[in-house]
Amino acid sequence: ECANELRFAASGDSDIDSCQVPENGVLEVPISINADVEVNNHTSVARKRKYKLETIEPGSMNVISAKYESLDYDVCENNLLLEEDRTKGYKFVVKKNLSRWLIFLLIGTLTAFIACIIDIGIEELSEIKFKTLKKYVDRCVEENCLYIPFLIWVVTNIVPVALGSALVAYIEPTAAGSGIPQVKCYLNGVKVPRVVRIKTLFVKVVGVICSVVGGLAVGKVRNLRIFKYFREDHEKRDFVSGGAAAGVAAAFGAPVGGVLFSLEEGASFWNQSLTWRIFFASIVSTFTLNIVLSTYHGHPGELSYAGLLNFGKFDNISYELFELPIFVLMGVIGGLLGSIFNHINYKLTVFRMRNITKKWMSVLEAMIVAAISATLGFLMIYFLNDCKPLGQDPTTNPIQMFCGDGEYNAVAAIWFQTPEASVRSLFHDPPGSHKSRFSWCVFCLLLFAVLLDVWTESLFPSSTWVDPGKYALVGAAAQLGGVVRMTISLTVIMIEATGNITFGLPLMLTLIMAKWIGDFFNEGLYDIHIQLSGVPLLPWEPPPLSYNIYASEIMSHPVFTFNSVEYVGYIVDVLKSETYNGFPGDTGDMKRTFRGIILRSQLIVLIKNKIFNESSDIWNIKQITIKMFRDEYPRYPNIKDVNVTNIERSYTIDLRPFMNPSPYTVQHSASLPRVFRLFRALGLRHLAVVNDTNEVIGIVTRKDLARYRIWRHRGQMGMEELVISEKV
Amino acid sequence: ECANELRFAASGDSDIDSCQVPENGVLEVPISINADVEVNNHTSVARKRKYKLETIEPGSMNVISAKYESLDYDVCENNLLLEEDRTKGYKFVVKKNLSRWLIFLLIGTLTAFIACIIDIGIEELSEIKFKTLKKYVDRCVEENCLYIPFLIWVVTNIVPVALGSALVAYIEPTAAGSGIPQVKCYLNGVKVPRVVRIKTLFVKVVGVICSVVGGLAVGKVRNLRIFKYFREDHEKRDFVSGGAAAGVAAAFGAPVGGVLFSLEEGASFWNQSLTWRIFFASIVSTFTLNIVLSTYHGHPGELSYAGLLNFGKFDNISYELFELPIFVLMGVIGGLLGSIFNHINYKLTVFRMRNITKKWMSVLEAMIVAAISATLGFLMIYFLNDCKPLGQDPTTNPIQMFCGDGEYNAVAAIWFQTPEASVRSLFHDPPGSHKSRFSWCVFCLLLFAVLLDVWTESLFPSSTWVDPGKYALVGAAAQLGGVVRMTISLTVIMIEATGNITFGLPLMLTLIMAKWIGDFFNEGLYDIHIQLSGVPLLPWEPPPLSYNIYASEIMSHPVFTFNSVEYVGYIVDVLKSETYNGFPGDTGDMKRTFRGIILRSQLIVLIKNKIFNESSDIWNIKQITIKMFRDEYPRYPNIKDVNVTNIERSYTIDLRPFMNPSPYTVQHSASLPRVFRLFRALGLRHLAVVNDTNEVIGIVTRKDLARYRIWRHRGQMGMEELVISEKV
Repeated sequence: ECANELRFAASGDSDIDSCQVPENGVLEVPISINADVEVNNHTSVARKRKYKLETIEPGSMNVISAKYESLDYDVCENNLLLEEDRTKGYKFVVKKNLSRWLIFLLIGTLTAFIACIIDIGIEELSEIKFKTLKKYVDRCVEENCLYIPFLIWVVTNIVPVALGSALVAYIEPTAAGSGIPQVKCYLNGVKVPRVVRIKTLFVKVVGVICSVVGGLAVGKVRNLRIFKYFREDHEKRDFVSGGAAAGVAAAFGAPVGGVLFSLEEGASFWNQSLTWRIFFASIVSTFTLNIVLSTYHGHPGELSYAGLLNFGKFDNISYELFELPIFVLMGVIGGLLGSIFNHINYKLTVFRMRNITKKWMSVLEAMIVAAISATLGFLMIYFLNDCKPLGQDPTTNPIQMFCGDGEYNAVAAIWFQTPEASVRSLFHDPPGSHKSRFSWCVFCLLLFAVLLDVWTESLFPSSTWVDPGKYALVGAAAQLGGVVRMTISLTVIMIEATGNITFGLPLMLTLIMAKWIGDFFNEGLYDIHIQLSGVPLLPWEPPPLSYNIYASEIMSHPVFTFNSVEYVGYIVDVLKSETYNGFPGDTGDMKRTFRGIILRSQLIVLIKNKIFNESSDIWNIKQITIKMFRDEYPRYPNIKDVNVTNIERSYTIDLRPFMNPSPYTVQHSASLPRVFRLFRALGLRHLAVVNDTNEVIGIVTRKDLARYRIWRHRGQMGMEELVISEKV
Repeated sequence: ECANELRFAASGDSDIDSCQVPENGVLEVPISINADVEVNNHTSVARKRKYKLETIEPGSMNVISAKYESLDYDVCENNLLLEEDRTKGYKFVVKKNLSRWLIFLLIGTLTAFIACIIDIGIEELSEIKFKTLKKYVDRCVEENCLYIPFLIWVVTNIVPVALGSALVAYIEPTAAGSGIPQVKCYLNGVKVPRVVRIKTLFVKVVGVICSVVGGLAVGKVRNLRIFKYFREDHEKRDFVSGGAAAGVAAAFGAPVGGVLFSLEEGASFWNQSLTWRIFFASIVSTFTLNIVLSTYHGHPGELSYAGLLNFGKFDNISYELFELPIFVLMGVIGGLLGSIFNHINYKLTVFRMRNITKKWMSVLEAMIVAAISATLGFLMIYFLNDCKPLGQDPTTNPIQMFCGDGEYNAVAAIWFQTPEASVRSLFHDPPGSHKSRFSWCVFCLLLFAVLLDVWTESLFPSSTWVDPGKYALVGAAAQLGGVVRMTISLTVIMIEATGNITFGLPLMLTLIMAKWIGDFFNEGLYDIHIQLSGVPLLPWEPPPLSYNIYASEIMSHPVFTFNSVEYVGYIVDVLKSETYNGFPGDTGDMKRTFRGIILRSQLIVLIKNKIFNESSDIWNIKQITIKMFRDEYPRYPNIKDVNVTNIERSYTIDLRPFMNPSPYTVQHSASLPRVFRLFRALGLRHLAVVNDTNEVIGIVTRKDLARYRIWRHRGQMGMEELVISEKV
């Protein structure tokens, strides 16, 4: 009863595996299913050998969270796709291409509009606050009632911050944080939950306005109008790349920098036509923002508002050879301070992870930080007398603020002593959990800033040849480079934002030094936070010296396989059980040729639509198109929501037209670097491992590869194996 | 006698294939050899079904030349590499990494020095020529003997051109041409013969100085100091990327533009650390050039010579909204003219390919063109009176010349009416075959230039708001963009070279329009020349709608396979015969599991070093290291130069320690896009196609994929299958 006719036994897990292939050479066609299981909050998947269930200390850096899944960039080349190809023709390809451009146009425009809304909202609110404060300060300086503006300041800080942080904490926690780590993870191929949704965008916009952060962070949430032919992960990733680039472009008026940011932080595969479209979106975004803001400020057609944040104009800055060592030194100091900052930030984050465990606590925390920030700002102005009278021409002291992320605004205010940054810092308060994580560091940043300030001033005591703006710029670059460790894109962004190209070389020199020195001690800020949250990020290169680790050691096994015509009941059981727990099915001893991969989502759609062989009278194979699957993208139903009657359980599904018939495979003897390169370069989600006779013996997923991580500190390097855990 | 013991029959081609695998399941281990055969000049490979031997018309665009081979970016993970890994440890990795940085430092420095030599050489020679000419012009204007400076001009044109073109034609033809297509092909993975050699560099430098071209073209030939651990194709490609970027950086003072150029034109796999090193080389190159030239010009430490070619400073250029349509229009016109230029250039190239078939003819041609160029230039100055008096301050009319390639200099001279460009154009004459191909187009370019000139002047008749420098810049960008169709890198290069960032957006807009319009009609200039020379360049994306083309249709077959322990005689015979002709061996019916790939070069090294099982007394497996193979890289001996005695022919080689044991494979049922992506993303040279039971049935190489080409013109698209021919 084990031959190539269908078995009508009741579905189960063990009997299906006990069936050996006949010696007559007729091949059965098992299909391995999605080994990347869907995990809900109440889930505890325990795959053999891999998933440790021991309690993980908060702040562990050597843990991968099991909750993150991969995006699937590989195209499922099943019959339905071929059918679509056949019927559409080249005209369709041309049309699809044009729609892609249109989407990127939309992305650019929408990004710019969202950036404008944020900017104008911030400006209007700041105006009100600033005027009120100024009125009271002016009056109270004479009447000696400075506590009144101070109280107003504190209150106007706390109220919007409470609003913003509550929104984030209770409605959409994904919107918290700078957004850059999320975008980075998404572009790396990690499915960050709910990052590309309208709700997230709304909370983000309101939250950002409340916290007056603006800029960079909004680059990630705009791919809402995905046209029907683009319902695939790889198209979506392209759109997210475009959005990220457009966001940076709008924030800094830096279209080239935006493209480079998107590439440096995200894409692994440099694709010319995609880069093209990203560039296009960046330009559109910069243009749109420019036009809208020029009009808003009453100079329509002048196009002088290139970005939300700019440094003013740096004309006539030049440098000489003897200044280069100074720039190098500033880079070194920036790298040192940056790595110290990152270390303190890490410690504080861990402290917060341990102690701030409730939602109300994070709101309260944000409010306290807001109050402290107001107090500090007030004291700063009062005692240091560093801030010039409000309303002074900002172009004389050109750097207003650098980073789109709020965490630097306070520093910018002190460090660059510019009135506009001071005004902004009045409002500067992190709204949500991730954001306020940074605010703990405002303290140390303030210290640093004062330190650096003193250092710079003592070094160059207003001598003639020294242009303070120049050193301020380099100092800002060094500090920022030491913290975030982006280099090429950061250089270009700074060049574009300052509008001064001559100064590109010193900036590059400084940023490279800052990165080298910083990397000597620890990771960049974003990477630290990514590691803390246990995201299985794949690095750019496979670990060195790992040629002696083989696919058979990396892979997850056993795998569940299906016959090409399989019982509905068995499929449902496997899908259900796989969701909850690893099943001890084993195909290791079977002689079954690998025939393809079918995704969990596809199986669910098939069952939901009741595409059973026995009920073929109610559906027609010719009417099933790829649209059936696309319509469900990206939120496929849960298997528990699909009703299957007992009769239907004994029905069968022919999986062949729907599976991916020739996915990439590797030999069990392939090395880790080989598996890694294939997986990384092609953006795979599953990679089947086969033996000499082409039978599946395991599946490699992202977590299996991200487990092997290289560390590189203080001139040493080595490899560590991470723990995969449910408890992160 | 067909079992798993060694057969001692005489080596041959058919008997080895007639052996069926025994049914007892003991697997033999055939290894498919390098199907990409080494082809010499006198070779005529004729593989079944693929290689057409019919005569190819010169100028055919649908032909792939069989003479180009692939670089091999895949790492051969044989026992020797594993052994090296085991013995070296992480310290070695750190050290290797540091040496990489050192090499990139060297690349940057050397590039800059070579650029300096070229620049200073040109300047000194131009000075002499220019002074002589000026003296005679000044005297002869009064004495009415203008034919004397004219004759001097012609002679001083012809002599260096004759020298340069003779050097190129007789000594190193690879040095001809702009170099960009070669670099592009090399980075794409095509082994361009002799492109990375010292002789090429020497001829190039002298040739460039002779033709006063300078700049961009030198970016490709500097990877001479390859340290011993980097004797692999993929390391070499990285160095070439760095060299290309450093060359552009030195030529235009545009380090970021250099990086982007290198990526846009070359790399398929965006690798962060590589990009980093490329960026580093670019910066080093710009710095070095700057320091050397500043010192040469007597202003040491001033760092004002950012690049060889610059446009002068464009301060205070701005634009308004209503000007955008004008920029778009200029882009459209640039695209139209560019596509016409490319078409004429194509026709002329074909004409030259048909008629200029001897070396002396190309030298003569270059001399004639030089004479015509001098005459034209003279007439231009005489009649149009467009050139201002020599010696005028160049910064008032800031654009001197744009492109590093000489073909634009003449246009630059007319189009921008700058004295310095005129001086350069005195010397402008293409030296070699590829170069002078362009000179045929100097005619049409001159016409265009005059046309455009008139058009620009009539459009903006010196009204106030119009800044002629601004439109000249946009016009140059449009013209250049319409011809070469690079966009992102070109924009950044122009931004960096002009030192004006505000003007980035209009430039991008213009370049994008020029590219779109130009691409509507034909390919970019470089792509046309690449297609004409039949280089099997792989595009960025697989052809659309090709999911119904399967690996089994794409692959070359039959393949020659070796047993894992194979007779020396058979190996030698196959290597020799494969070089000369396709052999009708067939493994289609055999049940032989795929075990790995061994390269032709490895086999030759093994035979040359006599690593035979029967002579294992004279060598020790433990003494064989990866060094034995590296020492021969990249010029492996020819099989004909390796002597094998008759006794040795009956010896055997154990290939297992040397072969790549788990290379990438695809199923015979994999689609063309799937095969393409794997091949392209990982930079493969051979991709084995296996059947359901993991037996090799064919091999896919670069030419098999490059055969399928998409054309896209006038809003239509389609796929064509190219002919692979020996006759290109």
